[in-house]
Amino acid sequence: MKVAPDPSRRSHASRRAILAAALDLVGEVGYTKLSIEGIATAAGVGKQTIYRWWPSKGSLLFDAFLTLAGDEQDGATAGLPDTGDLETDLKLVLRTTVAELNDPRYDLPMRALHTEIVHDPALAADYAKRLDEPMRELKKERLRAAQRAGQLAEDANLDVAVDLLFGPILNRWLQRTGPLTPEYAGQVVETALRGLRPREP
Amino acid sequence: MKVAPDPSRRSHASRRAILAAALDLVGEVGYTKLSIEGIATAAGVGKQTIYRWWPSKGSLLFDAFLTLAGDEQDGATAGLPDTGDLETDLKLVLRTTVAELNDPRYDLPMRALHTEIVHDPALAADYAKRLDEPMRELKKERLRAAQRAGQLAEDANLDVAVDLLFGPILNRWLQRTGPLTPEYAGQVVETALRGLRPREP
Repeated sequence: MKVAPDPSRRSHASRRAILAAALDLVGEVGYTKLSIEGIATAAGVGKQTIYRWWPSKGSLLFDAFLTLAGDEQDGATAGLPDTGDLETDLKLVLRTTVAELNDPRYDLPMRALHTEIVHDPALAADYAKRLDEPMRELKKERLRAAQRAGQLAEDANLDVAVDLLFGPILNRWLQRTGPLTPEYAGQVVETALRGLRPREP
Repeated sequence: MKVAPDPSRRSHASRRAILAAALDLVGEVGYTKLSIEGIATAAGVGKQTIYRWWPSKGSLLFDAFLTLAGDEQDGATAGLPDTGDLETDLKLVLRTTVAELNDPRYDLPMRALHTEIVHDPALAADYAKRLDEPMRELKKERLRAAQRAGQLAEDANLDVAVDLLFGPILNRWLQRTGPLTPEYAGQVVETALRGLRPREP
């Protein structure tokens, strides 16, 4: 018998406990050693409770990361802020990202996910489909709005733009090649945007 | 008794065999499971031969990566090409990097190094000091020459510039978020340089 998720408060609390346990554990033991059994024990629920909601540890972990990304509405993600000023909005987004990556609660699970992706092409494809592509589309939507507002060159390649804006933060965090500060985030936005703005006529 | 490295041809062949074995093995088993003993066996030399030249597996591996980077002159690295045209030179460098990252011989050991760095702050510090910083300095030297030639803004932050130019390639390779092509390398250079060029007066 298939049981639909219980919308009660208790069910919601279990769900949150499972997602939190998955993030804690993946940071501690890595993706390979992460098990549904271990997550169930840490969350204080039965394995069947987890299997009722998630078919695999991969799907559970991705929901956990979506939660971490500030989204708990089953996969739908909020757009980037749009105050009408692209530079201000991007600086806000990148500085928030910097603050999250510097938060020890996020640091270990995010590192675990990123290194598993590097070695596991199937997980990388899942990551691309479930996390990178939807997030990238939201970023490109904000950049398209900036193009309509004349703040970004009409012919800018938006995939390259996303990579130039968001890639350096991720690299510096992963490789610890320099301090990951709000100032650095601001400089990345300023330099990248100078290259992306409409050329003077 | 301390024995200085033997400059004979046989010694040079052993050294190359050891470096090649280290790269092969780290790609196969990862940095954690990499052992001097395993490298010695694979290279057909005694463990003492390795310890005579390298104090640790870390120092051996970094020499192996420096070899991979096309440099076998004990740590000294060649500068970036300088034809006088920054865009042409950077496109050449980034397209060469793309070709190397797409080469299966480099792919696995480089992934192993990058993921170990992500989880091991001590190795990250060693990587920063022995590989990233010297390479970064060479890149910045080329950018400084471009500043003197009026091809780059005087006030460009050169660390941010290096990150914008080289980071996106590394990310796309590690995360497989899109095809790593020479065309992509060219677009990254063009977009980043538009942001870094001197502003029109």
